[in-house]
Amino acid sequence: MIKKVICVVALISTAVACNNKPKENPIVQKDNTIEKTDFIFPQGEKGSPDFFTGNAYNYGLVPMDSTYTTLVGNVYFEPGARSNWHTHPGGQILIITDGIGYHQIEGQPVEVMHKGDVVKCPPNVRHWHGASKDSDLQQMYIVPNTEKGIVEWMEAVTDEQYNNVKN
Amino acid sequence: MIKKVICVVALISTAVACNNKPKENPIVQKDNTIEKTDFIFPQGEKGSPDFFTGNAYNYGLVPMDSTYTTLVGNVYFEPGARSNWHTHPGGQILIITDGIGYHQIEGQPVEVMHKGDVVKCPPNVRHWHGASKDSDLQQMYIVPNTEKGIVEWMEAVTDEQYNNVKN
Repeated sequence: MIKKVICVVALISTAVACNNKPKENPIVQKDNTIEKTDFIFPQGEKGSPDFFTGNAYNYGLVPMDSTYTTLVGNVYFEPGARSNWHTHPGGQILIITDGIGYHQIEGQPVEVMHKGDVVKCPPNVRHWHGASKDSDLQQMYIVPNTEKGIVEWMEAVTDEQYNNVKN
Repeated sequence: MIKKVICVVALISTAVACNNKPKENPIVQKDNTIEKTDFIFPQGEKGSPDFFTGNAYNYGLVPMDSTYTTLVGNVYFEPGARSNWHTHPGGQILIITDGIGYHQIEGQPVEVMHKGDVVKCPPNVRHWHGASKDSDLQQMYIVPNTEKGIVEWMEAVTDEQYNNVKN
């Protein structure tokens, strides 16, 4: 059954203003220690299992507003982690800054994404994205035209769908 | 004298579609050799001295269109390089992925930008941005609301303005 849920993850993401966040990008480990990394952005908040399979972390960069009409953030996917199927009323642009990931528009083959790749998904088209099986992924997202809405979440990506990658 | 020139740099920037660009991010050296780097994006095309002081290179990521209404690209600024003063009819979002840079909104102090920083400039507000004196800068730009226009270029940033940084 398709769940139509307005993007809770986006709405709870932390807005980041100019120059006011940590410079050393701490990642909180399971034992509550802090790991400093070379990643561009902090790891962020763990995505809900209602919308993600595996461990995915969202870090908000630009919140929704009526001036820029653009939501921007970063998702760190651990290997094997991926979003549910979903659509964006105004479309979405993904920019890969590290790692290896997968992206699929419904009805098309899974495409493999690498550092530096730019992937677009048109408005109201079903897609999913996430890390590859063996590598993690740092993926910025840009959601334009936020006056049309942000996201509609749908069902999880099955293991069969996820594993259907022709490398 | 204020020059009002519609964004030539943006219009000539190369559009990058899904997964169709080099993975190894070549940089063409002055002697025409290729240097492979760890940068996320290729260096791109040198910006015109009509709009930039010093060496700045633009690499287009998402071209203008009526679907996403968002122009995205990356500028690599060598140390000391900066844009002219300019405005964006729909505003601009900068995301710093490496290096150290400066950004100034007219009438406000110069702010120093580091890796991971997000800086916004509202619509029709005069600003400039570039590398710091001693470090280069990798700076993604997002220009939303492209139906309103892209950029209006104005006069160069003087050395006195550029050097007025309180570190």
